[in-house]
Amino acid sequence: MNFNDKFNTIVEKNNSLLCIGLDPDMEKLPLHLQNDPDSFFAFNKAIIDATHDLVCCYKPNIAFYAAFGEKGLQSLIATTTYLKEHYSDIPILLDAKRGDIGNTAEKYAGEVFDVIGADGVTVNPYMGQDTLEPFLNRRDKGIFVLCRTSNAGAGDFQDLEVDGTPLYMRVAKSVATWNQQFGNCAMVVGATWPEQLAKVRELVPDMPLLIPGIGSQGGDLEKTLQNGLTQDKKGLLISVSRGILYASSGEDFAQKAREKAAEIQDTINNYRQ
Amino acid sequence: MNFNDKFNTIVEKNNSLLCIGLDPDMEKLPLHLQNDPDSFFAFNKAIIDATHDLVCCYKPNIAFYAAFGEKGLQSLIATTTYLKEHYSDIPILLDAKRGDIGNTAEKYAGEVFDVIGADGVTVNPYMGQDTLEPFLNRRDKGIFVLCRTSNAGAGDFQDLEVDGTPLYMRVAKSVATWNQQFGNCAMVVGATWPEQLAKVRELVPDMPLLIPGIGSQGGDLEKTLQNGLTQDKKGLLISVSRGILYASSGEDFAQKAREKAAEIQDTINNYRQ
Repeated sequence: MNFNDKFNTIVEKNNSLLCIGLDPDMEKLPLHLQNDPDSFFAFNKAIIDATHDLVCCYKPNIAFYAAFGEKGLQSLIATTTYLKEHYSDIPILLDAKRGDIGNTAEKYAGEVFDVIGADGVTVNPYMGQDTLEPFLNRRDKGIFVLCRTSNAGAGDFQDLEVDGTPLYMRVAKSVATWNQQFGNCAMVVGATWPEQLAKVRELVPDMPLLIPGIGSQGGDLEKTLQNGLTQDKKGLLISVSRGILYASSGEDFAQKAREKAAEIQDTINNYRQ
Repeated sequence: MNFNDKFNTIVEKNNSLLCIGLDPDMEKLPLHLQNDPDSFFAFNKAIIDATHDLVCCYKPNIAFYAAFGEKGLQSLIATTTYLKEHYSDIPILLDAKRGDIGNTAEKYAGEVFDVIGADGVTVNPYMGQDTLEPFLNRRDKGIFVLCRTSNAGAGDFQDLEVDGTPLYMRVAKSVATWNQQFGNCAMVVGATWPEQLAKVRELVPDMPLLIPGIGSQGGDLEKTLQNGLTQDKKGLLISVSRGILYASSGEDFAQKAREKAAEIQDTINNYRQ
């Protein structure tokens, strides 16, 4: 099943547009897990078991694992393996923001899809279309191109005007074109920029959009939904990491994470009705 | 010692601007190494031992290792550890093209500098200045920002004109500004674009520039030197990977790699005189 079919199926089944970012941070893990031989996996497993019926996607960001070398990579692969074994209907989006020249990008595609086993990946467009082709050619995978990112400095280059059109919209137009080949493209647009989100959504009425920036980064959930939902009230992966993962630092962290996830899911679904 | 001092010292000592890309590719390794328990490290070690007096830098691209998961990461760390133990005066530039929001970029900086032990790294500017700060704040490291990349499609976005200035020059101007803080910035400009290289060099007369694209990618070495050298005939890291690594696929691969490296070093130095 390709990414979009998998995504749309789980959106229906779980009635959810919530994507949980699996970004374990040693300093924030509950104390009782910090001595676990694989504390990242133990943490992720508990979060997954507690929230799997509330989400449309899990999104591990590889940086949080890579900072711990081999051990981190083991935790990440243990997590994706666990998801595939127990919750194979939930897509795994690896947040990796990769991008390199062709023969190198092939290697990155191998890392993301073959080694880690992701269903989708985030990629950076700066180097141009040919550098993304090794990803785009994986027609069953979801390729999420950075468009307007959630950080405060996103506009430094993304907002520069090219013949009256900001760069991020030039990127969006290119992605719309690339998508005509296999229909496997998606984009990243931060919840911190609802006006820009509206413009992107107008351009790509049906394309899945990953929306980071809700929660710790202060994005506006209501405006995001108003400006980002597709006509059938879907098409968004609303990503929340810290706001759910660290709802409690005690032994009840998974239960509190579930409560927080359910609360966000409800808020989203109230708006979708 | 900071990156620039280390780089300038080895340029003098080895009289070289040649940077060898350590990008081992299983399909291209000499047959007799393919059954080695760590064939990537065995290959890199032989290349390093044969060329250490001819180079100004080694540049492993992490993608070539990441495609092999844990085992690949072990090979990469074995390589950087070997370099630090035996040839500690040669800087290690990790080609990783990283970039992500602040708290995530901190994790990537940990991967690159603390886990892998690189002296410098390539980063992608698309997400904006704040996403690069965790790298830029490592004041003793060399931060190589992608400017005009060597691939055929580099111009897709990098050449878009913003008020009459192409995007890559807007990036270059930002990097020149960021460099005022700690003097630890550098840029990546492909040898395939000598005209653009001339413009970047005019803007940053003294900044180190990493030049991929010589060899397999068809960049013009003479024009690169003509347009890219600093006034004192330095300031470039001319990167060659496949053209040196796979000069021979036989048991003489390291010797042939040395011959090829020496030949390129000579060509460069003839031009510098």
